[in-house]
Amino acid sequence: MAFDAIETPFGKVDKIIGGSATYVAYAASNFVTPVQQISIVGYDFPKEEMDSLKKRGIEMDGVEVVPDKKSFFWSGKYHIDMNTRDTLVTDLNVLADFNPVVPDSYQGADFLMLGNLSPNIQLSVIDQLKKRPKLIVMDTMNFWMDIAMDDLKAVIKKVDVLLVNDGEARQLSGEVSLVKAAKAILDMGPKFLIIKKGEHGALLFHENHVFFAPALPLEEVFDPTGAGDTFAGGFIGYLAKTKDISFDNMKTAIIVGSAMASFCVEKFGPNRLKEISKSDIDARLEEFVELVNFDIDLV
Amino acid sequence: MAFDAIETPFGKVDKIIGGSATYVAYAASNFVTPVQQISIVGYDFPKEEMDSLKKRGIEMDGVEVVPDKKSFFWSGKYHIDMNTRDTLVTDLNVLADFNPVVPDSYQGADFLMLGNLSPNIQLSVIDQLKKRPKLIVMDTMNFWMDIAMDDLKAVIKKVDVLLVNDGEARQLSGEVSLVKAAKAILDMGPKFLIIKKGEHGALLFHENHVFFAPALPLEEVFDPTGAGDTFAGGFIGYLAKTKDISFDNMKTAIIVGSAMASFCVEKFGPNRLKEISKSDIDARLEEFVELVNFDIDLV
Repeated sequence: MAFDAIETPFGKVDKIIGGSATYVAYAASNFVTPVQQISIVGYDFPKEEMDSLKKRGIEMDGVEVVPDKKSFFWSGKYHIDMNTRDTLVTDLNVLADFNPVVPDSYQGADFLMLGNLSPNIQLSVIDQLKKRPKLIVMDTMNFWMDIAMDDLKAVIKKVDVLLVNDGEARQLSGEVSLVKAAKAILDMGPKFLIIKKGEHGALLFHENHVFFAPALPLEEVFDPTGAGDTFAGGFIGYLAKTKDISFDNMKTAIIVGSAMASFCVEKFGPNRLKEISKSDIDARLEEFVELVNFDIDLV
Repeated sequence: MAFDAIETPFGKVDKIIGGSATYVAYAASNFVTPVQQISIVGYDFPKEEMDSLKKRGIEMDGVEVVPDKKSFFWSGKYHIDMNTRDTLVTDLNVLADFNPVVPDSYQGADFLMLGNLSPNIQLSVIDQLKKRPKLIVMDTMNFWMDIAMDDLKAVIKKVDVLLVNDGEARQLSGEVSLVKAAKAILDMGPKFLIIKKGEHGALLFHENHVFFAPALPLEEVFDPTGAGDTFAGGFIGYLAKTKDISFDNMKTAIIVGSAMASFCVEKFGPNRLKEISKSDIDARLEEFVELVNFDIDLV
């Protein structure tokens, strides 16, 4: 949970709440409650944002509030194509000393989503859980591959689903072909691999199977910040709701994740996610069915 | 119809047959015959390649053979990611004076595919047809947008389906968003627009509808040369076979085109297209169904 300053070709905001956990929670809470949050914020994190999350069924027992430090702050500027961005500022603040403590009330959780953070912090949460969750989903990024590859691989070995983007899949595996990269990564431990390709959709790999979910073609992508986390939140939220972790159900969960991400990018930060209703989500899922459904006659 | 010299990270060939018309014909002839070819070649175009095409039901009455000139020759080298290439040599040869003449035996054709060539040549073929085909599909490229935009727009106005890649859609429309680009291009005349995104699949736009066909994730893309033409040949071949030019049938036709393109890239030039059987095509279409099919429960 953090503050972001974001500049896109369509506008800018100087300070808006963000952070993986915020986006995951907003997305997942459409499908399942409670969402039991683990994070750290400073004295400056607004009470009304905390209340807004609580109202949606997000529990805050695992969110440490540090009274004399500021929340994590990230500032970035997107290029005209919205696929690339420059990081302008990264102020770790409270995150520099983050040692997450899993509250007793969180023990027994069946679904664990590890947002993108240092592999050691991710591992610490896994290790604190007395009963292994039914499903552990892990997000990460190239930064950890650059500076902590061994630690990262140790965590990857312990999770069920790994989420990376296409460049990260190539970096992690050393393979250019995404199909070969997927095989190499599945050999590292996870049973499922999701490769996110931004506006080009996402691929789900499992054993020798592959499933593809497109991104919805949008007239305008206003702000991509948090889209990947929102995707992850929709994905694990849907799985937690349906309690079905089969490959077939994960296909649907990926479509749900894509639908949630398509909302996220429509406004700055999590603003659009705060507005949408179940009927908005249903309507968008119907759009995905329209987008990919076809009748096939064999030749 | 032409000769290509191709270098990819996986190997090179000094001289192999190629050209839009060759790929379109090989792909389409799996679905419908005769395919009535219009092209121009030199004295050097091999008789066995002509025979190979004829054996598949491709008529050559419209292919001019120039006895004292060489066939068009293109040479290119692909980069490591296979998405970009450098053109090393372009020898127009016979193509410099190409004035296609539509044979009488071709009159009355219901489906016309205009491969990527000068807009004036494309227009000349349309104008020579005494009865307008039921469906005219047109391919083009950024080169013609650079040097002959007005001529190009005049032809675009007369066709039913326009095929371009994502960069070309942006150049033609002046819009960055592909959804906005599609709207602008549909306003130029064509009822359908296909935006090809290479390894990221293809989008079909019609009125306010959009359909997405993924590319099959392949372990190795050996040589992308001709993949776009093969896609077009599969697309129009399937439509000609089914005689159904509805949006719904075009969805299936795009999947068929994607399946044909996925074969094309497996070997140099059209080599793989020469080998495949109907059962290979059926098996690959099943892979596409697996790739995108999902069950949806509304939330």
